[in-house]
Amino acid sequence: MSIHARLAELGILLPTPAAPVATYVPVVVHGGMAVVSGQLPMEAGALAVTGKLGAGVELAAGQRAARLCLINVLAQLEAALPGGLDQVVRIIRLGGFIAATADFTDHAKVMNGASDLAVEIFGERGRHARSTVGVPSLPLDAAVEIEALIGL
Amino acid sequence: MSIHARLAELGILLPTPAAPVATYVPVVVHGGMAVVSGQLPMEAGALAVTGKLGAGVELAAGQRAARLCLINVLAQLEAALPGGLDQVVRIIRLGGFIAATADFTDHAKVMNGASDLAVEIFGERGRHARSTVGVPSLPLDAAVEIEALIGL
Amino acid sequence: MSIHARLAELGILLPTPAAPVATYVPVVVHGGMAVVSGQLPMEAGALAVTGKLGAGVELAAGQRAARLCLINVLAQLEAALPGGLDQVVRIIRLGGFIAATADFTDHAKVMNGASDLAVEIFGERGRHARSTVGVPSLPLDAAVEIEALIGL
Repeated sequence: MSIHARLAELGILLPTPAAPVATYVPVVVHGGMAVVSGQLPMEAGALAVTGKLGAGVELAAGQRAARLCLINVLAQLEAALPGGLDQVVRIIRLGGFIAATADFTDHAKVMNGASDLAVEIFGERGRHARSTVGVPSLPLDAAVEIEALIGL
Repeated sequence: MSIHARLAELGILLPTPAAPVATYVPVVVHGGMAVVSGQLPMEAGALAVTGKLGAGVELAAGQRAARLCLINVLAQLEAALPGGLDQVVRIIRLGGFIAATADFTDHAKVMNGASDLAVEIFGERGRHARSTVGVPSLPLDAAVEIEALIGL
Repeated sequence: MSIHARLAELGILLPTPAAPVATYVPVVVHGGMAVVSGQLPMEAGALAVTGKLGAGVELAAGQRAARLCLINVLAQLEAALPGGLDQVVRIIRLGGFIAATADFTDHAKVMNGASDLAVEIFGERGRHARSTVGVPSLPLDAAVEIEALIGL
Protein backbone atom coordinates (compact mmCIF):
# COMPACT_ATOMS: atom_id res chain seq x y z
CA MET A 1 0.00 0.00 0.00
CA SER A 2 1.33 3.46 -0.81
CA ILE A 3 1.85 5.84 2.06
CA HIS A 4 -0.80 8.12 0.57
CA ALA A 5 -3.37 5.32 0.63
CA ARG A 6 -2.40 4.55 4.21
CA LEU A 7 -2.75 8.22 5.21
CA ALA A 8 -6.20 8.32 3.59
CA GLU A 9 -7.16 5.14 5.43
CA LEU A 10 -6.14 6.78 8.73
CA GLY A 11 -8.04 9.95 7.80
CA ILE A 12 -4.90 12.07 7.88
CA LEU A 13 -4.75 15.05 5.53
CA LEU A 14 -1.27 16.49 5.12
CA PRO A 15 -1.31 20.27 5.60
CA THR A 16 0.42 22.77 3.37
CA PRO A 17 3.86 22.71 4.95
CA ALA A 18 4.79 25.76 7.01
CA ALA A 19 7.36 27.98 5.34
CA PRO A 20 10.43 28.74 7.48
CA VAL A 21 10.38 32.37 8.54
CA ALA A 22 14.12 32.75 8.04
CA THR A 23 17.09 31.70 5.94
CA TYR A 24 16.96 28.04 6.88
CA VAL A 25 15.06 25.35 4.96
CA PRO A 26 12.63 22.66 6.12
CA VAL A 27 14.51 19.67 4.66
CA VAL A 28 18.08 19.02 3.56
CA VAL A 29 18.82 15.83 1.60
CA HIS A 30 22.43 14.61 1.79
CA GLY A 31 24.09 11.21 1.56
CA GLY A 32 20.94 9.12 1.40
CA MET A 33 19.33 10.86 4.33
CA ALA A 34 16.86 13.69 4.80
CA VAL A 35 17.24 15.98 7.80
CA VAL A 36 13.96 17.69 8.73
CA SER A 37 14.01 20.95 10.70
CA GLY A 38 12.22 21.04 14.04
CA GLN A 39 8.47 21.23 13.40
CA LEU A 40 5.86 22.82 15.66
CA PRO A 41 2.26 21.57 16.19
CA MET A 42 0.74 23.57 13.32
CA GLU A 43 -2.83 22.88 12.23
CA ALA A 44 -4.73 24.82 9.58
CA GLY A 45 -1.94 27.39 9.46
CA ALA A 46 -1.84 28.16 13.18
CA LEU A 47 -0.13 26.77 16.29
CA ALA A 48 -2.62 24.33 17.78
CA VAL A 49 -1.07 23.63 21.18
CA THR A 50 0.86 26.22 23.23
CA GLY A 51 1.97 26.30 26.85
CA LYS A 52 3.81 23.83 29.11
CA LEU A 53 3.23 20.28 30.20
CA GLY A 54 2.96 20.38 33.97
CA ALA A 55 1.50 23.89 33.93
CA GLY A 56 -1.85 23.81 32.21
CA VAL A 57 -1.28 21.59 29.14
CA GLU A 58 -2.76 18.15 29.86
CA LEU A 59 -1.14 14.89 28.75
CA ALA A 60 -3.71 14.31 25.99
CA ALA A 61 -3.11 17.80 24.58
CA GLY A 62 0.63 17.19 24.65
CA GLN A 63 0.19 13.90 22.78
CA ARG A 64 -1.96 15.67 20.20
CA ALA A 65 0.79 18.29 19.83
CA ALA A 66 3.40 15.56 19.24
CA ARG A 67 1.13 13.90 16.67
CA LEU A 68 0.68 17.23 14.86
CA CYS A 69 4.46 17.84 14.86
CA LEU A 70 4.95 14.48 13.13
CA ILE A 71 2.23 15.27 10.58
CA ASN A 72 4.10 18.49 9.81
CA VAL A 73 7.37 16.53 9.46
CA LEU A 74 5.59 14.33 6.89
CA ALA A 75 4.13 17.34 5.07
CA GLN A 76 7.64 18.80 4.75
CA LEU A 77 9.02 15.52 3.39
CA GLU A 78 6.13 15.17 0.93
CA ALA A 79 6.88 18.66 -0.40
CA ALA A 80 10.69 18.31 -0.46
CA LEU A 81 11.26 14.82 -1.87
CA PRO A 82 10.83 14.29 -5.62
CA GLY A 83 9.12 10.97 -4.91
CA GLY A 84 7.24 12.25 -1.88
CA LEU A 85 6.67 10.07 1.18
CA ASP A 86 6.98 6.83 -0.80
CA GLN A 87 10.72 7.59 -0.90
CA VAL A 88 10.98 7.10 2.86
CA VAL A 89 12.90 3.88 3.54
CA ARG A 90 13.19 4.34 7.29
CA ILE A 91 12.37 6.85 9.97
CA ILE A 92 15.80 6.72 11.58
CA ARG A 93 15.39 9.14 14.47
CA LEU A 94 12.90 11.52 16.02
CA GLY A 95 14.06 14.18 18.45
CA GLY A 96 11.32 15.42 20.76
CA PHE A 97 11.47 18.61 22.79
CA ILE A 98 8.65 18.92 25.32
CA ALA A 99 7.98 22.36 26.86
CA ALA A 100 7.66 21.34 30.49
CA THR A 101 8.08 22.36 34.09
CA ALA A 102 10.92 21.12 36.29
CA ASP A 103 8.67 18.59 38.04
CA PHE A 104 7.13 17.05 34.90
CA THR A 105 8.10 13.39 34.33
CA ASP A 106 5.80 12.04 31.57
CA HIS A 107 7.79 13.28 28.56
CA ALA A 108 7.88 9.78 27.04
CA LYS A 109 4.08 9.49 27.09
CA VAL A 110 3.78 12.85 25.32
CA MET A 111 6.25 11.79 22.63
CA ASN A 112 4.34 8.54 22.05
CA GLY A 113 1.76 10.70 20.23
CA ALA A 114 4.35 10.98 17.44
CA SER A 115 6.01 7.57 17.75
CA ASP A 116 2.75 5.61 17.66
CA LEU A 117 1.60 7.49 14.55
CA ALA A 118 4.94 6.87 12.80
CA VAL A 119 4.44 3.11 13.18
CA GLU A 120 0.72 3.29 12.30
CA ILE A 121 1.62 4.93 9.01
CA PHE A 122 4.91 3.29 8.05
CA GLY A 123 4.83 -0.07 9.87
CA GLU A 124 8.29 -1.52 10.50
CA ARG A 125 9.85 1.30 8.43
CA GLY A 126 8.41 3.68 11.02
CA ARG A 127 10.23 2.16 14.03
CA HIS A 128 12.74 4.84 14.97
CA ALA A 129 15.34 5.70 17.56
CA ARG A 130 14.34 8.72 19.60
CA SER A 131 15.43 11.16 22.27
CA THR A 132 12.87 12.98 24.37
CA VAL A 133 13.72 15.82 26.76
CA GLY A 134 12.05 18.70 28.53
CA VAL A 135 12.75 22.32 27.62
CA PRO A 136 11.68 25.48 29.45
CA SER A 137 10.33 27.19 26.32
CA LEU A 138 10.00 26.73 22.55
CA PRO A 139 9.58 29.16 19.65
CA LEU A 140 6.19 30.95 19.73
CA ASP A 141 5.27 29.18 23.01
CA ALA A 142 4.76 25.84 21.19
CA ALA A 143 4.15 22.90 23.56
CA VAL A 144 6.23 20.42 21.51
CA GLU A 145 8.87 20.53 18.76
CA ILE A 146 9.99 17.45 16.80
CA GLU A 147 12.89 17.06 14.39
CA ALA A 148 13.56 14.00 12.22
CA LEU A 149 16.31 12.06 10.47
CA ILE A 150 14.98 10.00 7.55
CA GLY A 151 16.64 7.24 5.50
CA LEU A 152 15.96 7.43 1.74
CA MET B 1 42.20 -6.30 22.62
CA SER B 2 38.49 -6.90 22.11
CA ILE B 3 36.07 -4.45 23.63
CA HIS B 4 34.73 -7.23 25.85
CA ALA B 5 38.18 -7.89 27.25
CA ARG B 6 38.63 -4.17 27.83
CA LEU B 7 35.26 -3.94 29.63
CA ALA B 8 36.23 -6.88 31.83
CA GLU B 9 39.58 -5.22 32.59
CA LEU B 10 37.72 -2.06 33.68
CA GLY B 11 35.30 -4.14 35.76
CA ILE B 12 32.29 -2.99 33.73
CA LEU B 13 29.41 -5.44 33.39
CA LEU B 14 26.94 -4.52 30.66
CA PRO B 15 23.37 -4.60 31.98
CA THR B 16 20.45 -6.22 30.20
CA PRO B 17 19.44 -3.31 27.97
CA ALA B 18 16.27 -1.48 28.97
CA ALA B 19 13.33 -2.17 26.65
CA PRO B 20 11.68 0.95 25.24
CA VAL B 21 8.25 1.38 26.81
CA ALA B 22 6.72 2.48 23.51
CA THR B 23 6.77 1.99 19.75
CA TYR B 24 10.29 3.29 19.25
CA VAL B 25 13.42 1.13 19.22
CA PRO B 26 16.74 1.49 21.07
CA VAL B 27 18.98 1.39 17.97
CA VAL B 28 18.49 2.03 14.25
CA VAL B 29 21.26 1.04 11.85
CA HIS B 30 21.30 2.91 8.53
CA GLY B 31 24.00 3.88 6.06
CA GLY B 32 26.99 2.67 8.07
CA MET B 33 25.83 4.36 11.24
CA ALA B 34 23.92 3.32 14.36
CA VAL B 35 21.66 5.87 16.03
CA VAL B 36 21.08 5.08 19.70
CA SER B 37 17.96 6.40 21.47
CA GLY B 38 18.46 8.61 24.51
CA GLN B 39 19.46 6.42 27.45
CA LEU B 40 18.77 7.09 31.12
CA PRO B 41 21.08 6.20 34.08
CA MET B 42 19.64 2.72 34.64
CA GLU B 43 21.41 0.30 36.97
CA ALA B 44 20.15 -3.15 37.94
CA GLY B 45 16.83 -2.41 36.25
CA ALA B 46 16.10 0.85 38.05
CA LEU B 47 16.89 4.55 37.60
CA ALA B 48 20.00 5.13 39.69
CA VAL B 49 20.21 8.95 39.70
CA THR B 50 17.17 11.24 39.73
CA GLY B 51 16.74 14.96 40.42
CA LYS B 52 18.52 18.10 39.20
CA LEU B 53 22.08 19.29 39.16
CA GLY B 54 22.10 22.52 41.13
CA ALA B 55 19.21 21.39 43.33
CA GLY B 56 20.34 18.42 45.36
CA VAL B 57 22.24 16.24 42.87
CA GLU B 58 25.97 16.71 43.48
CA LEU B 59 28.56 16.87 40.69
CA ALA B 60 29.90 13.38 41.48
CA ALA B 61 26.38 11.90 41.33
CA GLY B 62 25.80 13.65 37.98
CA GLN B 63 29.05 12.23 36.61
CA ARG B 64 28.03 8.76 37.78
CA ALA B 65 24.68 9.26 36.02
CA ALA B 66 26.45 10.22 32.77
CA ARG B 67 28.72 7.18 33.07
CA LEU B 68 25.69 4.92 33.58
CA CYS B 69 23.93 6.46 30.55
CA LEU B 70 26.95 5.57 28.42
CA ILE B 71 27.05 2.02 29.80
CA ASN B 72 23.39 1.71 28.77
CA VAL B 73 24.23 3.05 25.29
CA LEU B 74 26.86 0.30 25.03
CA ALA B 75 24.44 -2.37 26.29
CA GLN B 76 21.97 -1.36 23.59
CA LEU B 77 24.65 -1.53 20.89
CA GLU B 78 25.88 -4.91 22.13
CA ALA B 79 22.31 -6.25 21.87
CA ALA B 80 21.46 -4.63 18.52
CA LEU B 81 24.59 -5.16 16.41
CA PRO B 82 25.21 -8.64 14.94
CA GLY B 83 28.89 -8.25 15.77
CA GLY B 84 28.27 -6.54 19.11
CA LEU B 85 30.54 -3.77 20.35
CA ASP B 86 33.50 -4.97 18.30
CA GLN B 87 31.63 -3.56 15.28
CA VAL B 88 32.02 -0.01 16.61
CA VAL B 89 34.46 1.85 14.37
CA ARG B 90 33.95 5.25 15.94
CA ILE B 91 31.86 6.96 18.55
CA ILE B 92 30.90 9.89 16.33
CA ARG B 93 28.77 11.97 18.65
CA LEU B 94 27.30 11.95 22.14
CA GLY B 95 24.41 14.27 22.99
CA GLY B 96 24.12 15.00 26.70
CA PHE B 97 21.05 16.44 28.39
CA ILE B 98 21.65 17.44 32.01
CA ALA B 99 18.60 18.07 34.23
CA ALA B 100 19.70 21.32 35.84
CA THR B 101 18.61 24.57 37.39
CA ALA B 102 18.93 27.93 35.62
CA ASP B 103 22.03 28.86 37.61
CA PHE B 104 23.96 25.60 37.07
CA THR B 105 27.12 26.00 34.96
CA ASP B 106 29.11 22.74 35.29
CA HIS B 107 27.28 20.73 32.59
CA ALA B 108 30.56 19.90 30.85
CA LYS B 109 32.04 18.36 34.00
CA VAL B 110 28.94 16.19 34.42
CA MET B 111 29.16 14.98 30.82
CA ASN B 112 32.83 14.10 31.27
CA GLY B 113 31.58 11.07 33.23
CA ALA B 114 30.49 9.65 29.87
CA SER B 115 33.21 11.10 27.64
CA ASP B 116 36.08 9.89 29.81
CA LEU B 117 34.65 6.36 29.92
CA ALA B 118 34.19 6.31 26.12
CA VAL B 119 37.90 6.96 25.68
CA GLU B 120 38.90 4.56 28.48
CA ILE B 121 37.04 1.77 26.70
CA PHE B 122 37.56 2.55 23.00
CA GLY B 123 40.78 4.60 22.97
CA GLU B 124 41.08 6.84 19.89
CA ARG B 125 37.90 5.28 18.42
CA GLY B 126 36.10 6.63 21.48
CA ARG B 127 37.00 10.30 20.86
CA HIS B 128 33.67 11.86 19.91
CA ALA B 129 32.05 15.16 19.11
CA ARG B 130 29.52 16.16 21.73
CA SER B 131 26.89 18.69 22.70
CA THR B 132 25.97 19.22 26.33
CA VAL B 133 23.03 21.33 27.47
CA GLY B 134 20.82 21.81 30.50
CA VAL B 135 17.16 20.80 30.52
CA PRO B 136 14.50 21.54 33.14
CA SER B 137 13.29 17.93 33.36
CA LEU B 138 13.80 14.49 31.82
CA PRO B 139 11.60 11.38 31.55
CA LEU B 140 10.99 9.76 34.96
CA ASP B 141 12.97 12.55 36.71
CA ALA B 142 16.28 11.14 35.41
CA ALA B 143 19.27 13.40 36.15
CA VAL B 144 20.97 12.80 32.78
CA GLU B 145 20.01 11.45 29.32
CA ILE B 146 22.58 10.60 26.63
CA GLU B 147 22.02 9.75 22.96
CA ALA B 148 24.70 8.51 20.55
CA LEU B 149 25.68 8.38 16.90
CA ILE B 150 28.04 5.50 16.13
CA GLY B 151 30.10 4.75 13.04
CA LEU B 152 30.16 1.08 11.97
CA MET C 1 35.08 32.82 -4.75
CA SER C 2 36.83 30.85 -2.03
CA ILE C 3 35.26 30.85 1.42
CA HIS C 4 38.33 32.64 2.75
CA ALA C 5 37.88 35.46 0.26
CA ARG C 6 34.22 35.68 1.21
CA LEU C 7 35.07 35.79 4.92
CA ALA C 8 37.56 38.58 4.27
CA GLU C 9 34.95 40.47 2.25
CA LEU C 10 32.54 40.20 5.20
CA GLY C 11 35.28 41.31 7.61
CA ILE C 12 35.13 38.06 9.55
CA LEU C 13 38.34 36.86 11.15
CA LEU C 14 38.23 33.22 12.27
CA PRO C 15 39.44 32.89 15.86
CA THR C 16 41.87 30.27 17.10
CA PRO C 17 39.41 27.45 17.78
CA ALA C 18 38.68 26.73 21.41
CA ALA C 19 40.26 23.50 22.67
CA PRO C 20 37.81 21.11 24.32
CA VAL C 21 38.48 20.96 28.04
CA ALA C 22 37.88 17.23 28.19
CA THR C 23 38.28 13.95 26.32
CA TYR C 24 35.93 14.85 23.47
CA VAL C 25 37.03 16.46 20.20
CA PRO C 26 35.66 19.47 18.31
CA VAL C 27 35.03 17.69 15.00
CA VAL C 28 34.55 14.06 13.93
CA VAL C 29 34.60 13.24 10.20
CA HIS C 30 32.79 10.03 9.21
CA GLY C 31 31.02 8.85 6.09
CA GLY C 32 31.23 12.09 4.12
CA MET C 33 30.03 14.22 7.00
CA ALA C 34 31.61 16.30 9.72
CA VAL C 35 29.92 16.48 13.12
CA VAL C 36 30.89 19.62 15.04
CA SER C 37 30.62 19.69 18.85
CA GLY C 38 28.37 22.32 20.42
CA GLN C 39 30.15 25.67 20.28
CA LEU C 40 29.76 28.56 22.69
CA PRO C 41 29.90 32.32 21.81
CA MET C 42 33.66 32.67 22.30
CA GLU C 43 35.42 35.84 21.17
CA ALA C 44 39.09 36.64 21.68
CA GLY C 45 39.42 33.62 23.95
CA ALA C 46 36.56 34.47 26.30
CA LEU C 47 32.80 33.90 26.48
CA ALA C 48 31.27 37.02 24.94
CA VAL C 49 27.59 36.60 25.86
CA THR C 50 26.37 35.02 29.09
CA GLY C 51 22.98 34.95 30.82
CA LYS C 52 19.44 34.19 29.65
CA LEU C 53 17.18 35.51 26.94
CA GLY C 54 14.10 36.83 28.72
CA ALA C 55 16.10 37.70 31.83
CA GLY C 56 18.56 40.43 30.95
CA VAL C 57 20.05 39.32 27.61
CA GLU C 58 18.43 41.40 24.86
CA LEU C 59 17.47 39.98 21.46
CA ALA C 60 20.36 41.73 19.69
CA ALA C 61 22.86 40.29 22.17
CA GLY C 62 21.38 36.84 21.66
CA GLN C 63 21.68 37.17 17.90
CA ARG C 64 25.31 38.25 18.31
CA ALA C 65 25.87 35.17 20.49
CA ALA C 66 24.39 32.90 17.81
CA ARG C 67 26.57 34.56 15.16
CA LEU C 68 29.66 34.02 17.32
CA CYS C 69 28.74 30.36 17.88
CA LEU C 70 28.62 29.85 14.10
CA ILE C 71 31.97 31.62 13.65
CA ASN C 72 33.41 29.18 16.20
CA VAL C 73 31.85 26.24 14.30
CA LEU C 74 33.63 27.50 11.18
CA ALA C 75 36.93 27.96 13.04
CA GLN C 76 36.73 24.35 14.22
CA LEU C 77 36.04 23.10 10.68
CA GLU C 78 38.88 25.20 9.25
CA ALA C 79 41.26 23.62 11.77
CA ALA C 80 39.96 20.05 11.45
CA LEU C 81 39.48 19.58 7.70
CA PRO C 82 42.58 18.99 5.54
CA GLY C 83 41.08 21.28 2.88
CA GLY C 84 39.66 23.75 5.38
CA LEU C 85 36.32 25.45 4.81
CA ASP C 86 36.53 25.05 1.03
CA GLN C 87 35.75 21.35 1.67
CA VAL C 88 32.27 22.25 2.93
CA VAL C 89 29.72 21.03 0.37
CA ARG C 90 26.65 21.76 2.46
CA ILE C 91 25.70 22.96 5.91
CA ILE C 92 23.20 20.16 6.54
CA ARG C 93 21.92 21.03 10.00
CA LEU C 94 22.42 23.53 12.80
CA GLY C 95 21.13 22.73 16.29
CA GLY C 96 20.55 25.83 18.40
CA PHE C 97 20.15 25.84 22.17
CA ILE C 98 19.04 29.20 23.57
CA ALA C 99 19.41 29.79 27.33
CA ALA C 100 15.98 31.25 28.04
CA THR C 101 13.24 31.73 30.58
CA ALA C 102 9.95 29.81 30.46
CA ASP C 103 8.10 32.80 28.98
CA PHE C 104 10.59 33.59 26.19
CA THR C 105 9.20 32.99 22.67
CA ASP C 106 11.69 34.59 20.22
CA HIS C 107 14.15 31.67 19.98
CA ALA C 108 13.91 31.64 16.19
CA LYS C 109 14.92 35.30 15.91
CA VAL C 110 17.95 34.63 18.12
CA MET C 111 19.01 31.67 15.98
CA ASN C 112 18.71 33.77 12.81
CA GLY C 113 21.98 35.39 13.91
CA ALA C 114 23.66 32.12 12.91
CA SER C 115 21.41 31.09 10.01
CA ASP C 116 21.68 34.43 8.20
CA LEU C 117 25.47 34.38 8.49
CA ALA C 118 25.64 30.81 7.15
CA VAL C 119 23.86 31.91 3.98
CA GLU C 120 25.83 35.17 3.72
CA ILE C 121 29.07 33.18 3.71
CA PHE C 122 28.14 29.99 1.82
CA GLY C 123 25.19 31.05 -0.35
CA GLU C 124 22.95 28.11 -1.35
CA ARG C 125 25.41 25.66 0.25
CA GLY C 126 24.70 27.44 3.54
CA ARG C 127 20.94 26.77 3.54
CA HIS C 128 20.48 24.28 6.36
CA ALA C 129 17.85 22.42 8.32
CA ARG C 130 17.72 23.55 11.91
CA SER C 131 16.16 22.93 15.30
CA THR C 132 15.97 25.72 17.86
CA VAL C 133 14.90 25.19 21.46
CA GLY C 134 15.13 26.90 24.82
CA VAL C 135 17.24 25.49 27.65
CA PRO C 136 17.39 26.58 31.30
CA SER C 137 21.19 26.74 31.40
CA LEU C 138 24.29 26.07 29.31
CA PRO C 139 27.92 25.30 30.17
CA LEU C 140 29.67 28.30 31.78
CA ASP C 141 26.42 30.33 31.67
CA ALA C 142 26.71 30.79 27.88
CA ALA C 143 23.63 32.42 26.32
CA VAL C 144 23.66 30.22 23.18
CA GLU C 145 25.21 26.90 22.06
CA ILE C 146 25.21 25.72 18.44
CA GLU C 147 26.18 22.31 17.02
CA ALA C 148 26.49 21.47 13.31
CA LEU C 149 26.29 18.64 10.81
CA ILE C 150 28.28 19.35 7.65
CA GLY C 151 28.31 17.58 4.27
CA LEU C 152 31.79 17.16 2.74
